[in-house]
Amino acid sequence: MFNKILIANRGEIALRVIRTCKEMGIKTVAVYSTADKESLHVRFADEAVCIGPAQSNLSYLNIPKIMAAVEITNADAIHPGYGFLAENADFAEICTEYGIKFIGPTAEQMRLMGDKVTAKETMIKAKVPCIPGSEGLVDDVKAGLEIADKIKYPVMIKATAGGGGKGMRVVHNKEEFEKNWNSAQMEAKASFGNDGLYIEKFIEEPRHIEIQVIGDQHGKVAHLSERDCSIQRRHQKLVEESPSPFMTTRLRDKMGKAAIKAAKAINYEGVGTIEFLVDKNRNFYFMEMNTRIQVEHTVTEEVIDHDLIKEQIKVAMGEKISGKNFIPLLHAIECRINAEDPFNNFRPSPGTITGFHSPKGQGVRVDTHVYAGYVIPPYYDSMIAKLICKAQTREECIRKMKRALDEFIVEGVKTTVPFHMQLMENEAFVSGKFDTSFMEDFKLEEPAG
Amino acid sequence: MFNKILIANRGEIALRVIRTCKEMGIKTVAVYSTADKESLHVRFADEAVCIGPAQSNLSYLNIPKIMAAVEITNADAIHPGYGFLAENADFAEICTEYGIKFIGPTAEQMRLMGDKVTAKETMIKAKVPCIPGSEGLVDDVKAGLEIADKIKYPVMIKATAGGGGKGMRVVHNKEEFEKNWNSAQMEAKASFGNDGLYIEKFIEEPRHIEIQVIGDQHGKVAHLSERDCSIQRRHQKLVEESPSPFMTTRLRDKMGKAAIKAAKAINYEGVGTIEFLVDKNRNFYFMEMNTRIQVEHTVTEEVIDHDLIKEQIKVAMGEKISGKNFIPLLHAIECRINAEDPFNNFRPSPGTITGFHSPKGQGVRVDTHVYAGYVIPPYYDSMIAKLICKAQTREECIRKMKRALDEFIVEGVKTTVPFHMQLMENEAFVSGKFDTSFMEDFKLEEPAG
Repeated sequence: MFNKILIANRGEIALRVIRTCKEMGIKTVAVYSTADKESLHVRFADEAVCIGPAQSNLSYLNIPKIMAAVEITNADAIHPGYGFLAENADFAEICTEYGIKFIGPTAEQMRLMGDKVTAKETMIKAKVPCIPGSEGLVDDVKAGLEIADKIKYPVMIKATAGGGGKGMRVVHNKEEFEKNWNSAQMEAKASFGNDGLYIEKFIEEPRHIEIQVIGDQHGKVAHLSERDCSIQRRHQKLVEESPSPFMTTRLRDKMGKAAIKAAKAINYEGVGTIEFLVDKNRNFYFMEMNTRIQVEHTVTEEVIDHDLIKEQIKVAMGEKISGKNFIPLLHAIECRINAEDPFNNFRPSPGTITGFHSPKGQGVRVDTHVYAGYVIPPYYDSMIAKLICKAQTREECIRKMKRALDEFIVEGVKTTVPFHMQLMENEAFVSGKFDTSFMEDFKLEEPAG
Repeated sequence: MFNKILIANRGEIALRVIRTCKEMGIKTVAVYSTADKESLHVRFADEAVCIGPAQSNLSYLNIPKIMAAVEITNADAIHPGYGFLAENADFAEICTEYGIKFIGPTAEQMRLMGDKVTAKETMIKAKVPCIPGSEGLVDDVKAGLEIADKIKYPVMIKATAGGGGKGMRVVHNKEEFEKNWNSAQMEAKASFGNDGLYIEKFIEEPRHIEIQVIGDQHGKVAHLSERDCSIQRRHQKLVEESPSPFMTTRLRDKMGKAAIKAAKAINYEGVGTIEFLVDKNRNFYFMEMNTRIQVEHTVTEEVIDHDLIKEQIKVAMGEKISGKNFIPLLHAIECRINAEDPFNNFRPSPGTITGFHSPKGQGVRVDTHVYAGYVIPPYYDSMIAKLICKAQTREECIRKMKRALDEFIVEGVKTTVPFHMQLMENEAFVSGKFDTSFMEDFKLEEPAG
């Protein structure tokens, strides 16, 4: 049993962890930068230690300062939250050296999943489906054609130095291969001064569907079903839901088993998420594993009615899990409420919140560290609240979300509430037929007046 | 399908109903007294009509004014909430005459349950267990002894004009009967000038356990399990929970069946509650039926994950229910947060709320119509919020409630938050071993400092 947990994080997730610790009878230590001294996580913790100035590398990312706070307060465990040091294997290692329990996987488990190449190798060995493709760079067009034949069209030619779509081509059949190869090579050379190319299977209409897993220290792993996170903007998730409207019982069973295999392959301990891409034919491919609690863990909590932070702390204390998998019985959606101006390219909108009223009532949950009078610092992530709704069906859940968004009042700064309002009315979203490209085509309507 | 519902109520329940209407796509009309113009129920409704001054008989209880608001706004249904006109059969009848759907039972159903004597007769006929006793006044000590023999000791002798325990005696055996009869008679004569006595079975260690039922217009009735409301002060419920810590599967089955029989006996339509007293041996007795939604419906919502207001509106629209009974899979507790001073005999504490922060997070729900800056009028019920927590077990739920109470900040007025904090630490409450007399013995500790 932990006596005192230091939360090496800020904002809503720090508060989220403090709440569960209180319910478990565990004392808490908040750490904070000078920019965060008025945050609720500081107010609700049993103790709070200032660890430096606003810049993350001098505070939330600064391992010596955090370890000093541990020493001062005599905490016996660290909860890293998400972001900052949550997936820093060196930090986990240092905690272990200091005899402090890092609430999460071991440094070794983290490293196995932190490196993309190692992770993919481990997954292939564990027979978890990965995106088929060339092993590294492809020598020439002839070798490329052979690989494409093997992994089947459509395929994607990608520049090894690539980014922003440059040197990238989708090829739908053999006849078009050579032409695309040559143009990708030229573009890569011109853009990056490096014409190295590799090949991957092109995933058609990909959905981002992830499986929540939990593993204990005794080798047991269970899955807690999926979350659909296909609504993303520049790889930032905006909305998550469980179950996925694209899910079938058969697919969940297959993905759940694959996720458990993935976690077992590294003897995973803690809560973690296996992210998959799922194509239009419901083939799924391993993308990566997040070896920490995620922002969107809340939608899983709502559909299975369990506190995942509590489960996470329990397995960190060495408790055994039942090993039972959980299937969602309800539908939950989370909207990330960011202090950003959706009508101005989602530009961050820090500043003072002059009015704040969060929605309430049946099936509505809000996780937030802000309040009227709070000053949003410009240094960190722009998320100021998570709004989670749940209902018996997806349709009812969307209606509830609209009602809740309508009640959400934030004055003084711009927020993404109007974006979510429009999203909840969007035909493709409502029908459940969308993929990760959804936001590329989404047109936000300017508010009248 | 209703197009527009007028909510003939105020405060949290008016807001509660508005929320569900919004989710169902039904327009809403709030009515308000001049004292309530800043309440959230006015702000969140589609339309709002002022129906008079603060005094209830000139506004919320004034049928002509409410019917005028219906006419002005062209509403096609009325939701009465709880209290005020919710159990006024004349009002239901007037609605029907005006062609407005009263969301609740018919006037006839209400009258059958509204009158205690009629209700008891109906229940006895329907074979729903009632508290055994004399039929009306008992002639003399000999007749009294015969009745006591029949209904078995312990029995209660009660003055027909009684109140405040005067002229009331508990008799544990035949030998003590005559002595108690005589003293009760003398006391009744002296206190009320009326020495009429009647006899009832004495319920030992009574718990107030009620069964939520729902009936449709097609004769189907289902039960949604129980709520334990034994924590009462002067017959005012303070805390409610589901399931009851005293419940067994067998007892729930029996009480559920009895509740369905009770509702079917009057062809009940709508959501309603059958209140029972349950003695220490798990015998249960009908007390009364509440023919409306109750304050504490929320704990049932939390353990069965259904919106009862939505179900209520659906059956009012003529929809059929499945007829399936619901069993709680989780544990939920509600604390009524009243603007009262628990350290000063729960004296009402109206005034301006200068600071307000409601608890949030997993498993926490707050229903409230107030906010920072809100002025609590002195004219109405002192409840300013309902705090509902749910968890996998009762123990976890109590821990969560303590955490949530700890987060609840109300500045400017006194509230019952400190009372609930102490209650959640109370040994008898925590052990689940308490009855309706709990509050008589409960000693509130003065806060330190």
